[in-house]
Amino acid sequence: MSVHPKDFFGSLRPTVIIGPGLIGGSLALALREKVPGAPLRVWARERSLQKTREALGGGIFVTSDVREAVEGSGLVVFCCPIGAMQGLAREMRGVLGDALVTDAGSVKGPVVEVLEPILGERFVGAHPMAGGERGGIEAASGNLFEGATCIITPGAETAAEAIAGIRSFWEGVGCRVLSMSASQHDRLVALASHLPHAVASALTLAVGSGDAQGGSGPLDVIGRGFRDSTRIAAGPAGLWAEIFLANRAEVLLALRDFLGACHEFEAMLRDANAAELEDFLSRAGMIRRRLG
Amino acid sequence: MSVHPKDFFGSLRPTVIIGPGLIGGSLALALREKVPGAPLRVWARERSLQKTREALGGGIFVTSDVREAVEGSGLVVFCCPIGAMQGLAREMRGVLGDALVTDAGSVKGPVVEVLEPILGERFVGAHPMAGGERGGIEAASGNLFEGATCIITPGAETAAEAIAGIRSFWEGVGCRVLSMSASQHDRLVALASHLPHAVASALTLAVGSGDAQGGSGPLDVIGRGFRDSTRIAAGPAGLWAEIFLANRAEVLLALRDFLGACHEFEAMLRDANAAELEDFLSRAGMIRRRLG
Repeated sequence: MSVHPKDFFGSLRPTVIIGPGLIGGSLALALREKVPGAPLRVWARERSLQKTREALGGGIFVTSDVREAVEGSGLVVFCCPIGAMQGLAREMRGVLGDALVTDAGSVKGPVVEVLEPILGERFVGAHPMAGGERGGIEAASGNLFEGATCIITPGAETAAEAIAGIRSFWEGVGCRVLSMSASQHDRLVALASHLPHAVASALTLAVGSGDAQGGSGPLDVIGRGFRDSTRIAAGPAGLWAEIFLANRAEVLLALRDFLGACHEFEAMLRDANAAELEDFLSRAGMIRRRLG
Repeated sequence: MSVHPKDFFGSLRPTVIIGPGLIGGSLALALREKVPGAPLRVWARERSLQKTREALGGGIFVTSDVREAVEGSGLVVFCCPIGAMQGLAREMRGVLGDALVTDAGSVKGPVVEVLEPILGERFVGAHPMAGGERGGIEAASGNLFEGATCIITPGAETAAEAIAGIRSFWEGVGCRVLSMSASQHDRLVALASHLPHAVASALTLAVGSGDAQGGSGPLDVIGRGFRDSTRIAAGPAGLWAEIFLANRAEVLLALRDFLGACHEFEAMLRDANAAELEDFLSRAGMIRRRLG
């Protein structure tokens, strides 16, 4: 590999964003702010070209031709849905030259499995843990990545220069970078991110369904606690269904752990065991307070 | 009943706060701000007198003698733990005169059941839905009740003047007041408040326990979503164990509804049913977005 970080982050060769949603759009804005004048290209589907150009403003080349977008570039970043990555990778392969490739998918095992055979040692999977309830380029922001954790998941065959380059790219847009295997990533985010989303959705439905009985319902008496607990349930349903399915085995394991804790609580409460109940709540409280 | 709102909220006769924790302390501060010069008394246990006086500053009479606190007052507000209310109500009964009484307990059935036989038509149960992770008078704030919902639960025998007076009191400190039966209150808050707390605690424990395996753990990769979802788990364990036990039957029912929704999600995911999964998430998202 002959590619060095400055080749793509120091403005010599274009950086290419594949798919301008919340993450891709925010990356484009962050790069334009941090490296003014650096060549930047965005690939979008035909139907999204107009919206993308309007949202990003001038100075960024937007095209729906993936080979045109990629040719001569130094770095390609997949920000499209996971299901679209394989086809696009095959299409661009012949014109990639020595460009590095990374992605921003929320699940890493299935992405790495599909992209490594096509892209080889130049590819380093990544998951910038940033986002919000509002998806789409309309919600994009140049500081979305400031202070966010980005997990990179190099494989056994990944080139050392590619790892260094991709790390410096994600650090460059503001992330704190952690490196681990794709399978460890998927186990950890199943617990830290996917499980909380499933729980927030189930909680919203359970409480919301208690509401259809006339008079005041539970939603009339919610406070900040319920609002905060369920905020993430407002996220885009299609995107999250895809994430859950892509990380299905790990999410099912995480859910099993969580339901175990719920059943433990239920048994203590059924038995009116005050001491155990307080101990349960107290252990949770200690963990939570440590997180600030 | 000869008591009118202005008798206690218009500064003629003292208002008495029983138990200066987060709620009692905040009530004292709110009353001092909103009705400057109005006589205000606080009852605290002997061991808390010093701390209470320091936290509230001057101009508020603090005593550990409950009869001294109550005699000649216009309104008494129980802000102590639910378990302490019965004994204190019996002790003050002989010197209550025609004072109104309300409380701030998080559960209403058990409170009303215990206090109505002792206090009769002068008593109106209430639950100001305000609080926070930090308990104790150190966290007290005069604007804790601004915009909070307060549910009052008058019984069949409660005097109309008592209802009007207690309503105007809670409105006076900034609350939006809803009136319903004690049993409806307990059902609604089991869903809207107690269930989310149990869920946040179980989620914290499930994710926190996944952490003891060396290297990076799930707590190293959490984001704002997990933090918000579990924030309430940092609340005081003893107080919450008491709340769960006092509202045990309703919390068990709410938990059953929630676990039902979790199992529904689990089955869809196990079957990799993308359409149903997206529908589940989408229904939750619609409810949650309506709440703002």
